[in-house]
Amino acid sequence: MGSISKHTLQRLPTYLAYLKSLPCADNACISAAAIAAALELGEVQVRKDLSAVGSAGKPRIGYPVNDLIQHLEYFLGYSTRNRAVLVGVGNLGLALLSYGGFADYGLDIVGAFDSNPALIGLQIDGRPVLSMDELPTFCQRENVQIGILAVPSAAAQPCCDALIAGGVRAVWNFAPVHLKAPDGVLIQRENMASSLALLSYHLKQPERN
Amino acid sequence: MGSISKHTLQRLPTYLAYLKSLPCADNACISAAAIAAALELGEVQVRKDLSAVGSAGKPRIGYPVNDLIQHLEYFLGYSTRNRAVLVGVGNLGLALLSYGGFADYGLDIVGAFDSNPALIGLQIDGRPVLSMDELPTFCQRENVQIGILAVPSAAAQPCCDALIAGGVRAVWNFAPVHLKAPDGVLIQRENMASSLALLSYHLKQPERN
Repeated sequence: MGSISKHTLQRLPTYLAYLKSLPCADNACISAAAIAAALELGEVQVRKDLSAVGSAGKPRIGYPVNDLIQHLEYFLGYSTRNRAVLVGVGNLGLALLSYGGFADYGLDIVGAFDSNPALIGLQIDGRPVLSMDELPTFCQRENVQIGILAVPSAAAQPCCDALIAGGVRAVWNFAPVHLKAPDGVLIQRENMASSLALLSYHLKQPERN
Repeated sequence: MGSISKHTLQRLPTYLAYLKSLPCADNACISAAAIAAALELGEVQVRKDLSAVGSAGKPRIGYPVNDLIQHLEYFLGYSTRNRAVLVGVGNLGLALLSYGGFADYGLDIVGAFDSNPALIGLQIDGRPVLSMDELPTFCQRENVQIGILAVPSAAAQPCCDALIAGGVRAVWNFAPVHLKAPDGVLIQRENMASSLALLSYHLKQPERN
């Protein structure tokens, strides 16, 4: 993951969301202690994370909020546009296609793919639904870098392979399976089953109060 | 998290999905080495994880597949039913409501809540959409243990508080904000913004090939 740890990187969007939730004020500053308290993190951790994106707080003043927001957005690449395709236009796929918020993170979904002939040819919020045969060519032609997989488990590996054949370098996998990919391709798994396991296990424990 | 580590717990659904994907055969066995190779994990890790759920492989034979599936399902509580409500019937909320797969994980969504009067009174796949005022009473009466939050960031904390007032002990949070909760309540965040940060950062790195 290069020069910054995966865990730091995963916390950065949380800092950004928190800073953006603060009332707007020019020249407002915030201390690492205040950020740490709001997000229930350690103050040393906050200083370390923010220094990794090139922000340094000033003694007794803290971090200028607007500068910090800009640093985080730049570092996270939200100002860079990344073109993505969605594979699998079921309920989850439709929700991901319709969700307007991804554009704020620099993610533009430019096309969708499905194997169901009844869906092919539809336009969903301005994006065409195309057949799986067209996937690699579309990705190459449209310079697509991210593939979002919202297909059933059994279809996930072949769809992942088709994305990689089209030159995609990062795959966001919502299917509950482990995928294999060559070096240089990142598979980021959104593992809802793991989250459910944690919730369910917590409920099995006796109440502490 | 009690006697088992969070990381082990998060891997268990992956073992289970893999074992269930294998061709059915009575008395079939599988070695830790084969599981490790398929899931790209270390063999020692696999043995340790499976021993935490009470499964021990036999030398030169391995683990009986069907027993292992039963152990994992029992340990993960998929045979126990957990009653949940969904708060926020937007695109994501609708997708979560319509997704049939959660029942396999022991999760039953028994009701949905929204602040939009146009939605209140609807039935979605047999679940009523109710007003936010009714949330705490409904949760108490229906013995709801899990709240699923699919609301905008600004609404997440008040909705979380309402769930906890209704006796919910575990909250699955899809809003990109940090939530505060009393001890004994688990907040499990599904952090899509963090996943996007990892994808976007990966694409900023020079290609290695």
